[in-house]
Amino acid sequence: MTETNNLNSTIQNLSRRELRDLVRTQLQMLLEAGDLQGAKSILVPVQPADIAEAIEGLPEAMHALAFRLLSKDEAIEVYEYLDYSVQERLIEELKSQEVCDIVDQMSPDDRARLFDELPAKVVNRLLEQLSPAERQATAQLLGYEADTAGRIMTLELISLKENLTVSQALERIRNLANASEMIYYLYVMDAARRLTGIVSLRELVTSQPEQIIGEIMTRDVVFVYTDTDQEEVTRLIQRYDFLALPVVDREQLLVGIVTVDDVIDILQQETTEDIYALGGVQSGGDNYFQMNLLEIARKRVVWLLVLLITNTVTGTIIKSQEDLLAKVVTLTAFIPLLTGTGGNVGAQSSTVVIRGMNTDEIRSLGVLQVIGREAIAGALLGGMLGTIATVWAYFLQGRLEVAIAVGTSLVAISILASISGSALPFLFRYLRLDPALMSAPFITTAVDVVGVLIYFNLARVILKL
Amino acid sequence: MTETNNLNSTIQNLSRRELRDLVRTQLQMLLEAGDLQGAKSILVPVQPADIAEAIEGLPEAMHALAFRLLSKDEAIEVYEYLDYSVQERLIEELKSQEVCDIVDQMSPDDRARLFDELPAKVVNRLLEQLSPAERQATAQLLGYEADTAGRIMTLELISLKENLTVSQALERIRNLANASEMIYYLYVMDAARRLTGIVSLRELVTSQPEQIIGEIMTRDVVFVYTDTDQEEVTRLIQRYDFLALPVVDREQLLVGIVTVDDVIDILQQETTEDIYALGGVQSGGDNYFQMNLLEIARKRVVWLLVLLITNTVTGTIIKSQEDLLAKVVTLTAFIPLLTGTGGNVGAQSSTVVIRGMNTDEIRSLGVLQVIGREAIAGALLGGMLGTIATVWAYFLQGRLEVAIAVGTSLVAISILASISGSALPFLFRYLRLDPALMSAPFITTAVDVVGVLIYFNLARVILKL
Repeated sequence: MTETNNLNSTIQNLSRRELRDLVRTQLQMLLEAGDLQGAKSILVPVQPADIAEAIEGLPEAMHALAFRLLSKDEAIEVYEYLDYSVQERLIEELKSQEVCDIVDQMSPDDRARLFDELPAKVVNRLLEQLSPAERQATAQLLGYEADTAGRIMTLELISLKENLTVSQALERIRNLANASEMIYYLYVMDAARRLTGIVSLRELVTSQPEQIIGEIMTRDVVFVYTDTDQEEVTRLIQRYDFLALPVVDREQLLVGIVTVDDVIDILQQETTEDIYALGGVQSGGDNYFQMNLLEIARKRVVWLLVLLITNTVTGTIIKSQEDLLAKVVTLTAFIPLLTGTGGNVGAQSSTVVIRGMNTDEIRSLGVLQVIGREAIAGALLGGMLGTIATVWAYFLQGRLEVAIAVGTSLVAISILASISGSALPFLFRYLRLDPALMSAPFITTAVDVVGVLIYFNLARVILKL
Repeated sequence: MTETNNLNSTIQNLSRRELRDLVRTQLQMLLEAGDLQGAKSILVPVQPADIAEAIEGLPEAMHALAFRLLSKDEAIEVYEYLDYSVQERLIEELKSQEVCDIVDQMSPDDRARLFDELPAKVVNRLLEQLSPAERQATAQLLGYEADTAGRIMTLELISLKENLTVSQALERIRNLANASEMIYYLYVMDAARRLTGIVSLRELVTSQPEQIIGEIMTRDVVFVYTDTDQEEVTRLIQRYDFLALPVVDREQLLVGIVTVDDVIDILQQETTEDIYALGGVQSGGDNYFQMNLLEIARKRVVWLLVLLITNTVTGTIIKSQEDLLAKVVTLTAFIPLLTGTGGNVGAQSSTVVIRGMNTDEIRSLGVLQVIGREAIAGALLGGMLGTIATVWAYFLQGRLEVAIAVGTSLVAISILASISGSALPFLFRYLRLDPALMSAPFITTAVDVVGVLIYFNLARVILKL
C-alpha cells in the first residue's frame, strides 16, 4: 500500500507525457534484461491508453512479448487503444487462441472497425472463431455502410420498460452494467422494442425510488437512423451536448447507440480528411506518418498531375501571347502576382465556405447570399490590392498603362476568384462530390486560365496594341 | 396526454432539421399574429438547443419578444445555446433585471466565455449586479489566461471524502446533483482539498452500499493544471475516453473540471482556426458568416499583401532574366507550371506536418526523421512529375534542352518544396509562432524565388547561354 502510494506521488509530479516516456524506457530495459516479472509489475498502475503507447514505442520485435505480460482483461482494453498497424502485427504473431480470446471480448463496434483494416482472409478466419453471438453482432455492424451511424454504434445499451419503478430500474442497471459500454443514459422501449423515451442515470439517482420511469423520462428523444451519415451524428451530439445518441432502424426499433468518445474520434478523423483534402493530399484513414513513402507519393501525385495539366494550359495561353509579350516584356513580370493572388483569394473563399458547410455555420444563409457576400468581399479585397498593386507596379516599371492593366486585372481576378471559390463547393456538394477534395484544382484552373486571359486582353486595350 | 403523444409521433417522423424549420416558421407566424399564448405552447416540448436555433432564425426585432415567452429556467438553458451576437443583442434589449437573473444563473464557465465577447463596459455593469458568490466564481475564471484549462473549466463538481461509504456518497450526490454540471465522475479529496482519487457513478452504482470510497476509487488520476493549454486538455480527454478531466492548481488542490461537451466545442473551434489559417484567413473566434464584409476584407487582406510582395520578388527575378527570356521566349510558358507545382508540393508537406503536430500523430518520429521522409517523398514525386513534364514539354515545344531544363528543375523544386514545407512548421513552433498561419507565405516565397532561380540557372547551363 505504501509502495503504491509512493509510486503514485512520483506519478503525480510527472506530466502524462513524461510518465509515458518513463514507462516505455523502463519497460524496454526490463524486457531486454529478460526480467518479465519486473516488466509486469511496472505496468500494473498504468492506464490502458498509456500501456498501449508504451508498447507502440518499443522495437517491433518486442510488441508481442510486452503484450503477453498483460492479464486477459487488461489485454483486451489495451488492444483497443493500439494503432491498427500494431493490432494487425499482433494478430499475426500471437497464437491463434490468444487472438481469438481478445477479439471475442472486444466491443462489437471496435471489432468492426478493426476488421475494416484487416485483410479479408484474416477477417474470415477470425469470424469463424468467434462465439456465435459475437459473430452475429459483428456481422450486423459490418452490414451497415461505412461512415454511417450503424457502423459506428455499439450494441451494448441498457433498455428499460416504462412501467418499472426507479428502484427496479437501478437494480436492472446494477445487473447489466458490466456488459454495457454506457450506463449513464437508459433507453425506454415499448413491447415492440420501439424507442419511446430516454432517462439519464442522473435523473434516476435524484428521483424517489418508487417513481415510475414513464413519468420521469424525456419523450422528445433525439435519435438517428442506422444509415445517418456519421458527420450528422457528430453534429447532433455536439449540438445537444449529449453523451450518447440512440440509433433506430426504419421501423423506429432501437438497435444501438453512438457514444461521445467515438464521436470525438470521428470528428478528428473527418477533420484530418478535410484538412488533407484542402491541402491536396488524398487520405485513407491510415496514419500518414506510418505509411510507406511510395504509398505517400501515390496519394499525392494524382492531384499534382491535375494541376500540372492546368498549369500547362496557362503556360500555353501565355505562349500564345508571344507577340504581345515580345513588345512589352515587362508584362511577364506581373503574371505570378496576378495568378498567385487570384489563387489565394479563391482559396480563402473556398476554405471558409467548405468549413462553414461542415460546421453548419452557414445554416442561416442561402447559397446565393453566401456567393454574393463573397463577391462583395472579393471586390473590396480587389479594390485594396488593385490600388496597392497599381502604385507598386508603376513604381517598379515606370509605365502607367502597364500599372493600370495590372491593377484593374487584379480587381477583376479577385471578384472572379471569390465567386468561383464560393460557388464551386456548393456545385460539388450538389453533385455529391467532396467539395474539399474537388474545389482547389478547379478554382486554380478557372482563376489561372481566365485570369491571364483577362490580363492580356485588358493590357491590349489599355496599351492600344 | 393524447395530444402530446400525437405531437410526439409527428415529431418522430421529422428529421431534426425539418423540426427546427417547422418550429421557427410557426413561431414567427404566431408572433406576427400576436398570439403569444400559442407561441408559448409550441415551444413547450422542444429541446433548448432547438429553441435557440428557432429564435436565431427569426427577424432580429422578434428576438427579445420570443425569448420572453420562455420560463425562467428554460430561458437560462436556451440563452447558453444562442450565438454570441444574439446573446449580446438580448442583453441590450431585455430589462436590466431580466438580464441579471439569467446571467446570475448561468454556469460560471459559460458566463466567463460570454463575458469574453461582450464590451468591457457591459461586463463591468453585469459583474456589479451578480450575487457575491457568482461574481467571485466568474472573476476567478476570468483570472486565468485565455485558452487554458482554468478558463474553460466549470467549478461545479461533487467531491467526496475517502472514508465515506458508497451509500453515503450516493446520498451526497442526490443532494448536490442540482448544483452540479457533471455527476458521473466524483472526485475524492483529502482534508487539504488535494485530489487523491476518482470514482465514477457507474462504480458507485455497481458497488455494495457498505463499501468504502477509498477502496473502490482509482488512484492514478489523470489531471491537468489551470494553466495547461486547452489543446492539451482535448488531447487527454480524447486519449483516455473520459467524460471530464479534473483541473488542479500548482499545490495539487482541486479547483474545477473540464467536461467533454466543452472539449468538443473547443476541438471544433481550434480546427476552424487551423483550417482558416491554412487557407490564409485570420480568425478571431467569431462566426465568419455573421461578420460584416469590411471586417472580413480586413482579416484577409494582410496575408494577401504579404504574398503580393512575395510575388513581386518573383516577378522582379523574372524581369532580371529578360535577356534569357527574349532569346528563348518559350521558357516563360513553363514558369506557372514550376512555381505552381512547387507551391502545391510544399502545401501538401506543410499540411500533413501541421495536422500531425496538432493530432500528435507525429509523436513517435523525430523532427529530422519527418523532414527526411518528406524529402524522399518529394524526390519520388519530383521524379514522377519531372519525367512526365519532360515528355510533355518536349511534345508541346519540340526543344529537348528546354524540356530537360523543365524536368530537372521540377525534381529540384519538389525536393526543395518538401523540405521547406516540412521544416518551416517545426521552426515556427520552436519560435512559438502559429505554424498553420505562418507557414504558407514563407513556403511560397522560398519555393517561388528559389524555384525560378534554379530554373533560369539550369536553363542557362543546359541551353549553354
